Amino acid sequence: MLVVQKFGGSSVGDAEKIKNVAQRVYETKQNGHEVVVVVSAMGDTTDELIALARTLTSNAAERDMDMLLSTGEQVSVALLVIALKDLGCNAVGLTGAQAGIRTDGKYGKAKIVDVDPRRLKAELARDQVVVVAGFQGITEEGEINTLGRGGSDTTAVALAVALKADLCEIYTDVDGVYTADPRVVPDARKLDMVSYDEMLELASLGAVVLHPRAVELAKLYNMSLVVRSSFNKEPGTEIKEVGSMERAAVVSGVAYDANVAKIGLFDVYDRPGIASIIFEALAKENINVDMIIQGATRNGKQDIAFTVSRDDLSKALKVVSAIQPEVGAKGYTHDEGLAKVSIVGAGMVSHPGVAAAMFKALAREQVNIEMISTSEIKVSCVVALEDLHKAVKVCHEEFKLDENEK
Amino acid sequence: MLVVQKFGGSSVGDAEKIKNVAQRVYETKQNGHEVVVVVSAMGDTTDELIALARTLTSNAAERDMDMLLSTGEQVSVALLVIALKDLGCNAVGLTGAQAGIRTDGKYGKAKIVDVDPRRLKAELARDQVVVVAGFQGITEEGEINTLGRGGSDTTAVALAVALKADLCEIYTDVDGVYTADPRVVPDARKLDMVSYDEMLELASLGAVVLHPRAVELAKLYNMSLVVRSSFNKEPGTEIKEVGSMERAAVVSGVAYDANVAKIGLFDVYDRPGIASIIFEALAKENINVDMIIQGATRNGKQDIAFTVSRDDLSKALKVVSAIQPEVGAKGYTHDEGLAKVSIVGAGMVSHPGVAAAMFKALAREQVNIEMISTSEIKVSCVVALEDLHKAVKVCHEEFKLDENEK
Repeated sequence: MLVVQKFGGSSVGDAEKIKNVAQRVYETKQNGHEVVVVVSAMGDTTDELIALARTLTSNAAERDMDMLLSTGEQVSVALLVIALKDLGCNAVGLTGAQAGIRTDGKYGKAKIVDVDPRRLKAELARDQVVVVAGFQGITEEGEINTLGRGGSDTTAVALAVALKADLCEIYTDVDGVYTADPRVVPDARKLDMVSYDEMLELASLGAVVLHPRAVELAKLYNMSLVVRSSFNKEPGTEIKEVGSMERAAVVSGVAYDANVAKIGLFDVYDRPGIASIIFEALAKENINVDMIIQGATRNGKQDIAFTVSRDDLSKALKVVSAIQPEVGAKGYTHDEGLAKVSIVGAGMVSHPGVAAAMFKALAREQVNIEMISTSEIKVSCVVALEDLHKAVKVCHEEFKLDENEK
Repeated sequence: MLVVQKFGGSSVGDAEKIKNVAQRVYETKQNGHEVVVVVSAMGDTTDELIALARTLTSNAAERDMDMLLSTGEQVSVALLVIALKDLGCNAVGLTGAQAGIRTDGKYGKAKIVDVDPRRLKAELARDQVVVVAGFQGITEEGEINTLGRGGSDTTAVALAVALKADLCEIYTDVDGVYTADPRVVPDARKLDMVSYDEMLELASLGAVVLHPRAVELAKLYNMSLVVRSSFNKEPGTEIKEVGSMERAAVVSGVAYDANVAKIGLFDVYDRPGIASIIFEALAKENINVDMIIQGATRNGKQDIAFTVSRDDLSKALKVVSAIQPEVGAKGYTHDEGLAKVSIVGAGMVSHPGVAAAMFKALAREQVNIEMISTSEIKVSCVVALEDLHKAVKVCHEEFKLDENEK
């Protein structure tokens, strides 16, 4: 079997942890598998390098930051190879460039355009464990790109796809994907499987054990992913195509985002193009808008409300203040004490009434719903931040997520 | 004018020092010059990375160490470019690979086989200051090599040669090359000029302000070098071809090495091949032998004595003990409390009696000479370590090195 194993920064945080990872990788190799390992920078290295650059200027160019930050993964690669060889395991380390990872030249947030797997295959054929620097690649012109935060997950999946690997394992500091955050819901249960779409929704809703870009890529190429802990031998959570699953739970998990702010505009003109003025102005400032609600028209005017991450609120308010005259708004309000609770499940699409059951459960606990959005596999409600834990718990109970899978 | 400027680890040791270097580089640019900068890793970075690897194993492979250590210079490059741009100076950073520095594949101690200057020239043509990672290059197969300690000096000279630069400036934490170590001889004088050969002898004798490999390369291509301080504006010491100098001082400087040990073998067979047995055995263990003295033959036997660095003494004694029967030695002794004092000067070759003057001066101060070796531009004497400072001072006086150049 050909396995790609990815170890994040917390898994390679110090010499002892690197030795632990080496042991783990070596065991996989000794079990007769071909192994490609992708590593992130050690612990806080990336943050420390960013802090170092900040002592020089507050606006370093992205090309220079990529040259700086890509060193972190290279250090991890070298150290893991040294630890593997010390165990007697054949190993070779490769930078993103050496591993044939071609990127699109967008410094700081590059996309992988291609993986040339020749060197990787040659090293595997020589019976080597191949250790590759995550988070980075090189352009055709030889420029170093980083993939942005969480990019090492994407590197792992991209290599697995290029090598037609049998499995891509993402090692992290949690045991897998849970039905809810165990810090909020003590009887949350680890899921044995979730579908790509469920994982995407869970990841984008704040239950980030796996970067959404990596999940999308895995889905596109139908690559089996496993999320598991680097600190124990538990089997983790498998992420694969819904069709291949024995059953599709109606609701697989409850996710939340405690970092929600809402902005409301009153009495905006009700005519074509108004929404685009607002949301283009926000997009230009790189502000991600999550939910949008447009009220009913009264006298040619309407209300528009939307949510942004709390970190973006002050930037968003500046934008709103600037465009207020243009959209004819009488005024605007904001509320930064909000949160979002979501139920996610691939089976939802064929089970009507799931959303209604969620609303009823929240009402039973006196949780007021401010905004609602739904997709085929997700229902999200914006609630007051102080109601969040109660809301997560009642949803978890309502859909009996603490019970073992049938 | 096209100038290559090299800044060592102590010159880029922290953010403040990097800003200082950026200021200095920018001034050169603003004076109308084209500038290529070569940087070493910040301060103790290389030693810290080595220590990190040692926590994993005591014998890391050199390929892995090169992957690890080459990150240090890459970090310096990125930070210096960030600092330059913050001053408003156009700058681009290049790894050794990106700068076209091709190496021979000898990990940890690679030699530069070629520099492809196309990228460098293109960036200079775009009015950029080009900042290049020292100490590293890449093989034709894309493998990362380091050049070994002091390799950044060599990078600077190699780039200067490849670009046909007008000047290569080596910035360091001393003002230039002195007639003697100012800590030993308070009235030692900074030299305005030395020849390549003198610099080579001075460098190899412990007065290391410039790596001998870099000097050799500069000599080979007749590239003008200047050694100067990165912390002041003093003009430093120029290193150039003797023929281009206004005068050749008989003695330019007094160098010393306080780290000498001697091993003597008694009554070794006096027949061909005996010396080669001893010195091949030592070479096999990577022990550098400096001076060798072979005594007169008595009854088909002779004594052999040689010096090694004190750090290598115990390793050398093991070798000697192993070969003792084979060479027929009756016994061996060692003395680790020795030092070497040397006078260096390109004018020596045309001034007989210089060596005699040195011996007489040492005798006057009751300094006993244990071993002597001479070359065309150097006389070295091994003396007791406790006599070293006295010996350096008396040589400095004898040749009037404290007086201004005529």
